Amino acid sequence: MKKEETKAFRDNWIRFVYNLQDEICTALEAEDGGAQFKTDNWERAKGRGGGGVSRIMENGAVFEKAGVNVSVVYGRLTDKMKKVLNIGLSSGEGSWFACGISLVLHTQNPFVPAVHANWRYFELHDEAGNVIDRWFGGGADLTPYYLFEEDVVHFHTMFKDAIDPFGTELYPLYKKQCDEYFSNTHRDNEMRGLGGVFYDHLKVSNEEEATRLFAFQEANGNAFLKAYLPIVQRRKNMPHTTENKTWQEIRRGRYVEFNLLHDRGTIFGIKTKGRTESILMSLPPTVKFVYDYHPEPGSEEDKLLQACKHPKEWV
Amino acid sequence: MKKEETKAFRDNWIRFVYNLQDEICTALEAEDGGAQFKTDNWERAKGRGGGGVSRIMENGAVFEKAGVNVSVVYGRLTDKMKKVLNIGLSSGEGSWFACGISLVLHTQNPFVPAVHANWRYFELHDEAGNVIDRWFGGGADLTPYYLFEEDVVHFHTMFKDAIDPFGTELYPLYKKQCDEYFSNTHRDNEMRGLGGVFYDHLKVSNEEEATRLFAFQEANGNAFLKAYLPIVQRRKNMPHTTENKTWQEIRRGRYVEFNLLHDRGTIFGIKTKGRTESILMSLPPTVKFVYDYHPEPGSEEDKLLQACKHPKEWV
Repeated sequence: MKKEETKAFRDNWIRFVYNLQDEICTALEAEDGGAQFKTDNWERAKGRGGGGVSRIMENGAVFEKAGVNVSVVYGRLTDKMKKVLNIGLSSGEGSWFACGISLVLHTQNPFVPAVHANWRYFELHDEAGNVIDRWFGGGADLTPYYLFEEDVVHFHTMFKDAIDPFGTELYPLYKKQCDEYFSNTHRDNEMRGLGGVFYDHLKVSNEEEATRLFAFQEANGNAFLKAYLPIVQRRKNMPHTTENKTWQEIRRGRYVEFNLLHDRGTIFGIKTKGRTESILMSLPPTVKFVYDYHPEPGSEEDKLLQACKHPKEWV
Repeated sequence: MKKEETKAFRDNWIRFVYNLQDEICTALEAEDGGAQFKTDNWERAKGRGGGGVSRIMENGAVFEKAGVNVSVVYGRLTDKMKKVLNIGLSSGEGSWFACGISLVLHTQNPFVPAVHANWRYFELHDEAGNVIDRWFGGGADLTPYYLFEEDVVHFHTMFKDAIDPFGTELYPLYKKQCDEYFSNTHRDNEMRGLGGVFYDHLKVSNEEEATRLFAFQEANGNAFLKAYLPIVQRRKNMPHTTENKTWQEIRRGRYVEFNLLHDRGTIFGIKTKGRTESILMSLPPTVKFVYDYHPEPGSEEDKLLQACKHPKEWV
């Protein structure tokens, strides 16, 4: 497929992610009622194409640290890049294009879960600039510090509802992939949170698929606020103790471990010389690393931990 | 070289690291005056050989989190292990043996530097159990949060003095390797601290070298307390503000980034299914990740940062 023919599609996707960024930031600011997002426009270092817009809120009333980032980046398909993308192209360099929105929200109140979501689009081009492969990826996952089953059920249900029109076999598959992906393999596969949905390499093989998968991405992106904000509203004013906050900070340590040791997005960003501050905005504002910490069996903290160790069907 | 012939050497090294662990923990407890080390004996999971002794102190008067670990581990030289060790053995599985002491000390007072040291010994065996390669590695590095030049000079001088009898060309080389190794490549090579010495693959090619390199390791190990304790004594009672502590916690974020993204020891441990709690004892007790934080130019915080960005000769 000629490069020019996918330009309109690419541009539509770029427009969609920037609009979604605006919509989500506006809603989060309203929900917070205190802090506002700071906007950083950035460009990649010389010789590398593209840039992005990072929007960051810190020390809000509700959100202790929130990042909602868009990046639109491209470059030559070097051997290193092929390795990072796990692509076995036989000859020639070609080029790649990637555009996505990525958000991570860390909250003040330990009863409000942290949340992460990402929706992305990739293209690979041959040396002549023709599109030889293109695909979507994405997902959203919830990281509670205390287990309120109704919150987890609500979050999963909203994404199931968004995905079901595209095939009822998809939510169970993407839910399972999410459990498997956000797993600290060095801690006996303990999950960093209670999942959601995760998918990658949804191949755009023809124009019909392009339309269908774009709509699928839109459905997921548009489900985010409906999935997350009601949970925030239910929990944000719940009184909590120093011990609750400490537990949140200990669990945030697992979040850091996952992101820096295992997360493909983070490692992709770091290896492709992405903007470090935008990539690492995902790291929680305050964290505690306590040696060999185990919550008391049967405690509320332990209930959450057990849920992270034993994935279950929430919907 | 027959496996049995190196047994006495291995045993001597194991004895040395356990003695050094005792000596260092005793001295640190005395310096702390408050908390004591907790001892965890551990064994590797079934099917994997060896184990170790982790000694951890938390919430001391001086040391907020301190770990002094010994591990004595061995196993079959699988393809995965060859990849981790970066070994290109042509055929056969063989086996490997590793024994080392590793310590990381994080302090309450932000004017007292954190410190890390590690001294290790490796053997590779062919399928018949003969030693086909063996080497030492190690080093020590200082991570201050404020720049007291006399502290950094003292630390470097003590290791230079320990190393010089083995060749005056070595300290400058190992100092440079340390600067290069403990570098956050994703942050324009900003160092996590102000260095020390780092060396690896000091090949034990014959018995004379075995004796000489063992003595070299001893000289380094024995230099540690002399290099570090005087700095602790000078700084531990200095009054400090919340802002000083916050800066320490922000810099500790860089420590976490280095250890989880770049540190070969951490990644080796995680990939070889080492004991997670012992490996990750290196992570600081409290950490802050602030988006795009820059200290005020010319401030004390900035002076430290500039020193981390621009390595210099301290001795």
